[in-house]
Amino acid sequence: SVNPDLGSERQTASFSVEKLTALLDGGTEQTRIRRAVVEAIESDPVFSRENQYFQTQNERYEAAVRKAVHLHKKMHEMGWTENGPEYKYIYRALSGDVAFLLHRVFMRSISVLGSDKQIAKWIPLATQHKLIGSYAQTELGHGTYLQGLETTAVFDTATQEFILNTPKISAMKWWPGDMGRSATHAVVFAQLYIQGKCYGIHPFIVQLRSLQDHSLCPGITAGDIGPKMNFEHIDNGYLLLKNVRIPRENMLSKFCEVRPDGTYVRQGSQKINYFTMTTVRISLISDEVLTPLMKACTIAIRYSVVRRQSKLKPGEQEAKILDYQTQQEKLLPQLAAAYAFHFINDYLQQLFNRGYREIQRKNFDMLPELHALSSGFKAVITQHSTAGVEICLRACGGHGYSLLSGLPSLYTKILASCIYEGENTILLLQTARFLIKCFMAASAGQPVPPSVTYLAAVKHGKCPAKNKLDFLSPDIYTEAYQHVAVRLTSSTAAKLQDLIQSGVKKHDAWNQCTVQLVQAAKVSKIYLLI
Amino acid sequence: SVNPDLGSERQTASFSVEKLTALLDGGTEQTRIRRAVVEAIESDPVFSRENQYFQTQNERYEAAVRKAVHLHKKMHEMGWTENGPEYKYIYRALSGDVAFLLHRVFMRSISVLGSDKQIAKWIPLATQHKLIGSYAQTELGHGTYLQGLETTAVFDTATQEFILNTPKISAMKWWPGDMGRSATHAVVFAQLYIQGKCYGIHPFIVQLRSLQDHSLCPGITAGDIGPKMNFEHIDNGYLLLKNVRIPRENMLSKFCEVRPDGTYVRQGSQKINYFTMTTVRISLISDEVLTPLMKACTIAIRYSVVRRQSKLKPGEQEAKILDYQTQQEKLLPQLAAAYAFHFINDYLQQLFNRGYREIQRKNFDMLPELHALSSGFKAVITQHSTAGVEICLRACGGHGYSLLSGLPSLYTKILASCIYEGENTILLLQTARFLIKCFMAASAGQPVPPSVTYLAAVKHGKCPAKNKLDFLSPDIYTEAYQHVAVRLTSSTAAKLQDLIQSGVKKHDAWNQCTVQLVQAAKVSKIYLLI
Repeated sequence: SVNPDLGSERQTASFSVEKLTALLDGGTEQTRIRRAVVEAIESDPVFSRENQYFQTQNERYEAAVRKAVHLHKKMHEMGWTENGPEYKYIYRALSGDVAFLLHRVFMRSISVLGSDKQIAKWIPLATQHKLIGSYAQTELGHGTYLQGLETTAVFDTATQEFILNTPKISAMKWWPGDMGRSATHAVVFAQLYIQGKCYGIHPFIVQLRSLQDHSLCPGITAGDIGPKMNFEHIDNGYLLLKNVRIPRENMLSKFCEVRPDGTYVRQGSQKINYFTMTTVRISLISDEVLTPLMKACTIAIRYSVVRRQSKLKPGEQEAKILDYQTQQEKLLPQLAAAYAFHFINDYLQQLFNRGYREIQRKNFDMLPELHALSSGFKAVITQHSTAGVEICLRACGGHGYSLLSGLPSLYTKILASCIYEGENTILLLQTARFLIKCFMAASAGQPVPPSVTYLAAVKHGKCPAKNKLDFLSPDIYTEAYQHVAVRLTSSTAAKLQDLIQSGVKKHDAWNQCTVQLVQAAKVSKIYLLI
Repeated sequence: SVNPDLGSERQTASFSVEKLTALLDGGTEQTRIRRAVVEAIESDPVFSRENQYFQTQNERYEAAVRKAVHLHKKMHEMGWTENGPEYKYIYRALSGDVAFLLHRVFMRSISVLGSDKQIAKWIPLATQHKLIGSYAQTELGHGTYLQGLETTAVFDTATQEFILNTPKISAMKWWPGDMGRSATHAVVFAQLYIQGKCYGIHPFIVQLRSLQDHSLCPGITAGDIGPKMNFEHIDNGYLLLKNVRIPRENMLSKFCEVRPDGTYVRQGSQKINYFTMTTVRISLISDEVLTPLMKACTIAIRYSVVRRQSKLKPGEQEAKILDYQTQQEKLLPQLAAAYAFHFINDYLQQLFNRGYREIQRKNFDMLPELHALSSGFKAVITQHSTAGVEICLRACGGHGYSLLSGLPSLYTKILASCIYEGENTILLLQTARFLIKCFMAASAGQPVPPSVTYLAAVKHGKCPAKNKLDFLSPDIYTEAYQHVAVRLTSSTAAKLQDLIQSGVKKHDAWNQCTVQLVQAAKVSKIYLLI
């Protein structure tokens, strides 16, 4: 039975809910598949989340492992596959409350960075879950600055092995999901040394635990990093390596190879090693950012229809809190953003799938632009969505603060998206570096990548809005944001040059402009989004 | 041993740290007392918080009860008293991680709202911990709108008792701290009925649990409301009352009394019943809002000195992240706000202590102003401080997201302060109602309370700043905020009148202006704060 206040609101819709649903899903067939998946998952008691807020961290972890194993069987039973149309709905229906998620990142790394031979060896093992993979990049003392990673991989020509070490405590791998207790293997990023020379960071497949008894392999120390603001079900881990030897074939070598004699051969850009992250950054938007925002909007708006508080008019019944102007001002912009981001997300996924195909063909031309775009969009969308979920939580007052509303865990989860896969400020500064470079090129009449051609078309016009109603036209906003994006970029570029010409060293000048650069990067991305 | 990066930063201070410490504490004697308290608490293993992030909710609750009992003994042993100078430092040193905090609110309610006879009966019992008190106001369906509370207290002349009931599920008391498992008594707010007539909400002392075996009293159903975003150590509870009879003497009757024959006598304003909350709202600022902000600033700024990431200059060591402009822009304004709020807090406490004394003398003149001021300041300070703690957390990246940094729990705790003791938007609208009323009075040449005399002095001048340097003068900001406060108030008042004159009903007109009214209230409080 539907709450009568909800029922009456639903009857006032000026559109067909079923048509909108199909539009959001991408067609009625998708809607049908989604509903079938949701039905199958929600009716299965193993996937129940009913007691999750009363469980300890250990119980949450064990339940997540149980679900992952059960899901594997269930998929077989239902005829679902990892590449099938159901997959994205499965994760969503589970609310991500399942173990072994890094396994997919492990596989993606091998698919992107591995040679055909490596793919042929490892992907079938991973697909059949004969191993559990993780992705070990971040270190206790090194997150955003990948060049600063300290883990070493020294090539030993005599044995044709790499010897991996954690030279000091700050080099300990820290955060990798599934690594604390679960993973048997990981793609580990380390500085490659050949005959004393450093060749920068490279990815290596390292076995962490025995496939027989799950005990740690010789030279490996690993465990759980302890409680976090959310992700109680995930065993984020630490990893220390002491003279861990792996065969030469375990360095992922689609783009770089160490030959048996120690010769180092590179095909393509060194930056390709970051590309896994570039694609992860975009692929996470849908599940980890938009879904929580949509859920938060749904919870908060439904609650605002059901909750009555105080009177709008004396003598009447208490009013639905959604009827208060202040409540509408809080919630409706978040709902609008959720729709906007949903539709823009399709475009972003297409753009990155195209980039991914080009890179597989060893065409690296789009790499700088894709990196800048993925960084900027990830930062702007996670930032806005996180603020949106917080607004939804607070708009529900005390009941929003109860874990049982679902809002606190949506907030503590989405908040992490502002930090992982590149902290947002750092990402915006990387976008800004690309913008400034392109602006300088455009100013010198050189060609620039498609996403920044607007930088060449500097306009000095005034706001074309003449009256209130003009502000209802989307074109006004597009033009205004373009204007601000160009102006912030050009004025910061000018300030940078002034500082350098006045004798400030290039790096100090950059640092002195970073607050403005972050602004420029944000606005440029908002402009592209609208 | 101090981390060398921290050590070198500390040596660069341009002021005496010891002098500043004494200034913050309010004198060297206060500093000495504080340090002695901190030393005594921190060296006592019963008060250890070492394992708190690994404990279940039940373990947290049991530890908090253990600490509360131990604290009682410890205070006796140390010669500390509830009214002594040590008390405020005890709570701070415990980080509030102790049970029975509502006991003080229970006592305060009786002190403020009880007759001399009631004070003489209950306060000694409470002081000696012969009972455990709570404060039951909020209901499942009623938080901010106190007039809408549904719990009833019907006077039975025959037995000289009040009969308390929870007429429906939305009337169930919900949230009271210490009520789920601990409290033996509560001050319960209920609608008073005498011979079928409702006299509005009044406070009643109700026994919930046996003083012999702690079992629930007849007619009482109570328990824990379940997990929240923080406060795992507190048994926030629910309470259902079914024909619970209490003696006539249990209605707190300093200001209102029911005589044996059922005659209702009031002395002073009905609004006095809200005054406990008015004082709680101000008294919580120091411990629940400023302390978390200060701690977050300390953690984040220390971390930013110790954490090195990326290079400012090529070839050099990785830079302290505090040396990045973007990190300074995040953290230093929060630190400045913590200092500003600390010093303003003394002024607020004095103002409210004065008001409290007046009200004890049954002079209610200041009540509307105190209510408006407490509402506005609480909203503005909690809002700003909560945002500040979130910024600190995010500025520490992944390590800030680990519970072990302390930042997540500071955030989830301070966030509650935006909601409890009056949700911030509602509080700002109450402040706005006072502002509009005073503005109308001032416009009509009538006298207004001291805190809003500025509303009468409307200035239409332009910003007096002539160049960049003028913006370093605090006077510019004071004048600017005064200007904005007056302008927002006057323009909203004008919009309200226009709407009403155009035929919109008064209550609809008010609702249509609330977004602007919230802005006006915020700015007016910021103006008073600076």
